[in-house]
Amino acid sequence: MTRGPVSGQAADLTTYFCDHAWLGGDATAKAVLVSVHDGRITAVEAGAREPREAVHLAGVTLPGFANVHSHAFHRALRGRTQRGGGTFWSWREQMYRVAAALSPESYYALARATYAEMTLAGFTSVGEFHYLHHQPGGAPYADANEMGAALVAAACEAGIRITLLDTCYLESAPGRPAEGPQLRFADAGAEAWAERVAGLHLGAGARLGAAIHSVRAVPPAAARLVAHAAASNDLPLHFHLSEQVSENETAIAAYGATPAAVLGGSGALGPTAVAVHGTHLSGKDVELLASSGTGVCMCPTTERDLADGVGPARLLAEAGAPISLGSDSHAVIDAFEEMRGLELDERLVSGRRGHWSAPELLVAATSAGHEAIGWPDCGRIAPGSVADLVTVTLDSPRLAGATPRSFVEHVVFAGSAPDVTDVVVAGRVVVSQGRHRLVGDVSAALGAAISSVVER
Amino acid sequence: MTRGPVSGQAADLTTYFCDHAWLGGDATAKAVLVSVHDGRITAVEAGAREPREAVHLAGVTLPGFANVHSHAFHRALRGRTQRGGGTFWSWREQMYRVAAALSPESYYALARATYAEMTLAGFTSVGEFHYLHHQPGGAPYADANEMGAALVAAACEAGIRITLLDTCYLESAPGRPAEGPQLRFADAGAEAWAERVAGLHLGAGARLGAAIHSVRAVPPAAARLVAHAAASNDLPLHFHLSEQVSENETAIAAYGATPAAVLGGSGALGPTAVAVHGTHLSGKDVELLASSGTGVCMCPTTERDLADGVGPARLLAEAGAPISLGSDSHAVIDAFEEMRGLELDERLVSGRRGHWSAPELLVAATSAGHEAIGWPDCGRIAPGSVADLVTVTLDSPRLAGATPRSFVEHVVFAGSAPDVTDVVVAGRVVVSQGRHRLVGDVSAALGAAISSVVER
Repeated sequence: MTRGPVSGQAADLTTYFCDHAWLGGDATAKAVLVSVHDGRITAVEAGAREPREAVHLAGVTLPGFANVHSHAFHRALRGRTQRGGGTFWSWREQMYRVAAALSPESYYALARATYAEMTLAGFTSVGEFHYLHHQPGGAPYADANEMGAALVAAACEAGIRITLLDTCYLESAPGRPAEGPQLRFADAGAEAWAERVAGLHLGAGARLGAAIHSVRAVPPAAARLVAHAAASNDLPLHFHLSEQVSENETAIAAYGATPAAVLGGSGALGPTAVAVHGTHLSGKDVELLASSGTGVCMCPTTERDLADGVGPARLLAEAGAPISLGSDSHAVIDAFEEMRGLELDERLVSGRRGHWSAPELLVAATSAGHEAIGWPDCGRIAPGSVADLVTVTLDSPRLAGATPRSFVEHVVFAGSAPDVTDVVVAGRVVVSQGRHRLVGDVSAALGAAISSVVER
Repeated sequence: MTRGPVSGQAADLTTYFCDHAWLGGDATAKAVLVSVHDGRITAVEAGAREPREAVHLAGVTLPGFANVHSHAFHRALRGRTQRGGGTFWSWREQMYRVAAALSPESYYALARATYAEMTLAGFTSVGEFHYLHHQPGGAPYADANEMGAALVAAACEAGIRITLLDTCYLESAPGRPAEGPQLRFADAGAEAWAERVAGLHLGAGARLGAAIHSVRAVPPAAARLVAHAAASNDLPLHFHLSEQVSENETAIAAYGATPAAVLGGSGALGPTAVAVHGTHLSGKDVELLASSGTGVCMCPTTERDLADGVGPARLLAEAGAPISLGSDSHAVIDAFEEMRGLELDERLVSGRRGHWSAPELLVAATSAGHEAIGWPDCGRIAPGSVADLVTVTLDSPRLAGATPRSFVEHVVFAGSAPDVTDVVVAGRVVVSQGRHRLVGDVSAALGAAISSVVER
C-alpha cells in the first residue's frame, strides 16, 4: 500500500543515534541506534554505543505524527474567527468566505506553508480532506483535479507525505442543492465524483483516499457508490460524523436514522473507514462503529475551538474502534495539544483523570494515525518501518526536570510544537534544528499565502 | 499600596518603541512610544516616530501578566502525575510527597527556577499561595518565616514581583487535626498564624497578602480572625473555594452552608478578597461573591489537568465579580493557555463560542490580575502605571498571517509562551530576546532544582 518514501532522500545507509527514543510501550529506551537504508528502518538497537558517523539526535525521538484530518485552507482563519459569539454554523460562514477566494495558485501556496508548519511540528503525514474542487460557481477547471493536484504538489514541496482524501460533496442538505460557495465543492453526482477521481495520478509520497463529506451533504445511495469505489480501489474512506447535534437531527428527519446508522446502511463502515469527530454518538452508534472496525479520528483542538463538545473517545476505544488525531481547522497545529486534549477534555466532563495513558496517546498520534490514512508501515521506530523520526528537545523550560522514567508523560502532557527540533521523513531530513530545510522561512510563507486570501 | 519597582532598574529615562502595543480596548495601536522614568511609565504616544535612542520592541507589546495563584513547588510534579488514573485526591498524595521533601534551600532553588520560567512566559508578578511553613513534623524553623523568606528571595532573584499570600492552614478536615505532611502547613491557630506573619518584613518588589487555605482546613472562627487581620493591614485575602464537590459536601456537613456562605459569615468576602477556582458554585454562591465585590481567580490549565470541571466564570463576571487567572499547579506555565482556556472550556460545556472576547481575557491576565494581588498600578500600558512590558513576536509559525485588525485575537488564541521575546518589569529588562538576563539558563536551573526533590 505504501508508495515509497518522499522523493529526495539519500539512498545510502544513514544511522541516527538517539539519546532517548520511544519504541512503543510504557517508557523510552536509552542510546538507540536507528539504521536507515533507502528511506526505511533496517535495524533498531537500544543501549548502543554511538558510532562516529551517526547523526546525533538529542532529547527524545518519537515516530512521525500523522495529521489524520486536515483542511489546509482553514489555516487562513486562525485568529480571525475569534471575535463575536456564535456557533459552529456562524464560524462556517467565515470559512466559506475563504473557500470562495481561493484559486489553484493561492490554494497551493497556502497548503505548502501550512504543511510546512505541520512538518515543523513533527507531522510526517497528512490526511487532507479535500472538497474544494471546482471554480467559483461550480464549473470544473480545465484539469478537473487541478485543486487536488495543487495540494499534492504543496505536500511534496513541504516534505510531508499526503493522503488526498478526495471528498464527495453533493448537496447543501438532504434534497436541497448545493448553493453559493458550496458550488465549488459539489460534483454532479457520485458517478461524476468517481470519474473525476479516476483521473488523479499521484506520485511517490502521496496516495489517494476517498471521503464522503457527511450524511448531510451526500445521500445514502451516493454514499454507497463512494464506499464501493473506495473498497474496489483499496482506498481509505473518511467521513465527518456527528460533529453537531443538528447533523444528527437532519439525518433522523431525512433518513430516519443517525448518521452512523445511515452510513452503515450504505456499506461505508469497516476496517478501512474512519469517522471524523464522532462527538454526539448514541450508545448504538458507538457499537456500530466499533463492531465494524471503523476508526474514529478525534480533533480535540478544533472540537474545543468550535464548541462541538467532547466525544466518547475512551468508550469507542474500549469497544474496539482505533482512535487517531487530526488538527482539522488548524486553530493551532500542535500534535502535543491534540494528544493531551483527548485526555484533558475527557477529564473536564468526567471529573476523573487517567482515561488515556501517554503511550496510548502516542499510539493514536503515530501508528494508529498512519494506519487511518493508509500508511500502515509508517509511525513506528522498528525494523521494516518507513524512517519517520521526530526529535523533541528536553532543553526547553517546558520539559526541564523530566527524567527518563517520565519522559513519555512529560513530552505528551507538557511538550509543545516549538520543542520539535528535527524531523526525518522517509529517511530525508526535512527539519533540522528547528529549521525547515525545504521551505526555509515558514512564517514568511504563511504570511504571504494568507494575506492573499483574507480581507486585511 | 505598591511598594515600588523591583530593585535594580535604571533610574534614568528610557524609551521603548513598540511596533504594536495593546493599550486596552478592542485592538492594538501602531508605533507606540512608551517613556519610562524610575520604573514607571511617564508617557504613551501612539502613531509616533521612532527616536534613535529608543529600545525597539518588534511584534506586539502587552502589559505584564499577573500569575494570581501559584504553588511554586508543584512545578516539580509536572509530567510525574500523569501515569495511572485517579482524581484530584490521588494527585494530592503525590503533591504531598514533594511537599515533605522540601528544605528552605531546595524550596528557594525550585521557586527561583519556576519564577524564572514565569518571567520567560511574560508574567511580571506572582501571587504565591504559600502554606509550606514549618519543618517536617511541624516544628517551626529558627526563623519561623524562613520558607516564606525563601520564596521572596527567589522572586527577587528571578526578577518577578511577588505577593506572598501567607496561608493559614489549621486542620485536615473540620474537627480533625492536621496529619503527616500537613503538619508542615499548620500553625497552632489563627492567632499563631497572625503572630508569625507579623514577623515578615518584605523589601521592594514584594508585598504581603493573607490566605485562608480553604473552609476544609480553617474553621469559621479562625477564618474570621484571618479576615480581620487582612482588613486591618490592608492585605489582599485569598482562599481556595469549591474546587471539588466534596469540599462543598464537607462544608455543608460541618457548618450547614456552602464554603462561600461559610466564608461570607466569617467576613472574608469583599473587594480585596479573591476566591480561587469557584468551580462548583450554586447560584446563591455566585450572587454572594459578586455582590460583595469578591474577585475570582480561575486556573484553567490546572482545573482541566486535575479534572475539577469548568467553573461559571462568565456568570460570575456578569454578576460583577472581577475575574483573574493563575497557573496554580504549573502543569504548564503559559499565560496564553490560561487566557484561551477560560473561553475554550466554556465552549466545550456550553456548545457556544464567544463567552470571552480576547480583550476581556487580556484584562483578566493583566490589570485585573494585578489588582487581585494588590498591585493596582501594574498591568496597564498607560501613564502613571508601573512599566511592565511583554513583547510577543509575530515571527513564529503560530502567529504568522496575523494582521493588525486581529492581532489581539491572534495572540490570545494562538500565541504561546515561547513567543514571548522581551519582558520588562518595573522598567528593568528581565528577559531579552528570549533569554533570562538574571537567571541565564532557566532550564538548567529547573532541572537541578527538581532533581533534588523528586524520586528519580
